[in-house]
Amino acid sequence: MSRADDPVAYLREINATAAFNVWAGIDVVDAGGGQAVISMPWRPELGQYSGYLHAGVVAALIDTACGYAANHIVGRVMASHCAVNYLAPAVGESFLTTARVVKAGRRQIFTTAEVQAETAGESKLVATGETLLMPLLSEVPS
Amino acid sequence: MSRADDPVAYLREINATAAFNVWAGIDVVDAGGGQAVISMPWRPELGQYSGYLHAGVVAALIDTACGYAANHIVGRVMASHCAVNYLAPAVGESFLTTARVVKAGRRQIFTTAEVQAETAGESKLVATGETLLMPLLSEVPS
Amino acid sequence: MSRADDPVAYLREINATAAFNVWAGIDVVDAGGGQAVISMPWRPELGQYSGYLHAGVVAALIDTACGYAANHIVGRVMASHCAVNYLAPAVGESFLTTARVVKAGRRQIFTTAEVQAETAGESKLVATGETLLMPLLSEVPS
Amino acid sequence: MSRADDPVAYLREINATAAFNVWAGIDVVDAGGGQAVISMPWRPELGQYSGYLHAGVVAALIDTACGYAANHIVGRVMASHCAVNYLAPAVGESFLTTARVVKAGRRQIFTTAEVQAETAGESKLVATGETLLMPLLSEVPS
Repeated sequence: MSRADDPVAYLREINATAAFNVWAGIDVVDAGGGQAVISMPWRPELGQYSGYLHAGVVAALIDTACGYAANHIVGRVMASHCAVNYLAPAVGESFLTTARVVKAGRRQIFTTAEVQAETAGESKLVATGETLLMPLLSEVPS
Repeated sequence: MSRADDPVAYLREINATAAFNVWAGIDVVDAGGGQAVISMPWRPELGQYSGYLHAGVVAALIDTACGYAANHIVGRVMASHCAVNYLAPAVGESFLTTARVVKAGRRQIFTTAEVQAETAGESKLVATGETLLMPLLSEVPS
Repeated sequence: MSRADDPVAYLREINATAAFNVWAGIDVVDAGGGQAVISMPWRPELGQYSGYLHAGVVAALIDTACGYAANHIVGRVMASHCAVNYLAPAVGESFLTTARVVKAGRRQIFTTAEVQAETAGESKLVATGETLLMPLLSEVPS
Repeated sequence: MSRADDPVAYLREINATAAFNVWAGIDVVDAGGGQAVISMPWRPELGQYSGYLHAGVVAALIDTACGYAANHIVGRVMASHCAVNYLAPAVGESFLTTARVVKAGRRQIFTTAEVQAETAGESKLVATGETLLMPLLSEVPS
């Protein structure tokens, strides 16, 4: 499966090789055109000491969604920098993270993402974030 | 156990209530004086698709260590912002994260941290990061 | 002039008291509803060693626009944190910076902004950024 | 003058070509070994509306010092990302900014800096920051 033909299926194959993502229950919902959407259901093991989604898991969602948004354009990437704003306690039945590429250069890719907590059909914006990505060297044309 | 008498024991009690930290195997190694050190052994479920420590777990280490560094001074906190620099692939037998408070104000606390990967007794700096924390409202004196 | 009646005029009065903004030639173009737009013409004194707009001046545009976007909602603010992504060399006849409030809490306000370089009627996105703001204590209702 | 023989003199030559730095009164105080120190006297035109040093000028100090710290190792650079923490109002007779390289890779350089306000011989830490730098393409060996 190539990343051009069916970006969601392609990213699901990659996602299945990321052990943490499999454990966390992250799934690829939509992808293509420099965007990606991932979902993850809540469960207690993902929580910090107040029972909210752990700040690190929020960062994992943002890092993952940003990488998948970039994948369609530049292939596999690694994050140089990731920053997250925690707008509200991340409490919900599931979490939907939407990322998009802001600028894809040859040497680096700027991406941004937001995390919505979903409860009983209602969505609430709980975090925004951004990553600065570099193409994996093995993916750079020589 | 108060946080003044034995900061490590106090933070271990808090850490035991954070389900993600328990799952990840995070332990409190040292604490006090605006600093904290946590450790975490590597295991494959913590990995991303190249088998390195997942960027989100690196962020979880930085967020956790920063919160614990601040705890001794201001009690429980929540992160408003967390930023991580990924300096090198996070590969090691275990990871040691050291955080310190840069400035503790009444309304917000600035902290910084670094993550060392340890393999066969050798340490390598793999990430730096920072968090901006707010005291929990329940901890703010009225 | 109150900030509710005529936000642009109100912000221009504030802007006229910021000596750096006056020197830099920053003007308030639009404001209200948690958004603000400022403009600044290029001149060589604003440049770094390659003749592009200085990274610090780009940060000044983002910090200023974000503060003005928040002003309408919460009054005067101070930045705790500002981060800027430099997407492309900032070269243009003038620069238009648009900011909006992402989340206005009681204790902190999250904002985001982007800087467009304008040349001969063409716009190019050259930077994005964000600030985390706190209300000035003198503005917080007792 | 090469950057190996006399890094301060070399950076002063570069600094003299950055029109904004000349206007702001930035001077290179020390440099070498992946570190750099710059100074800047206060004057009112550098201020924001409360009369403190403008957040954008603080960012300019951090961006400049970080670039100079990296220069000795990798030559000319451009910032991809700059983040600043504003710890306290930046008020002083002059400002001393110290930067160092945290990690210099082939494709990107991580740097960190802090700004001290100096008044009557007393120093106060008012800001910390970091930049992520890329070597200028013209400096990359082919």
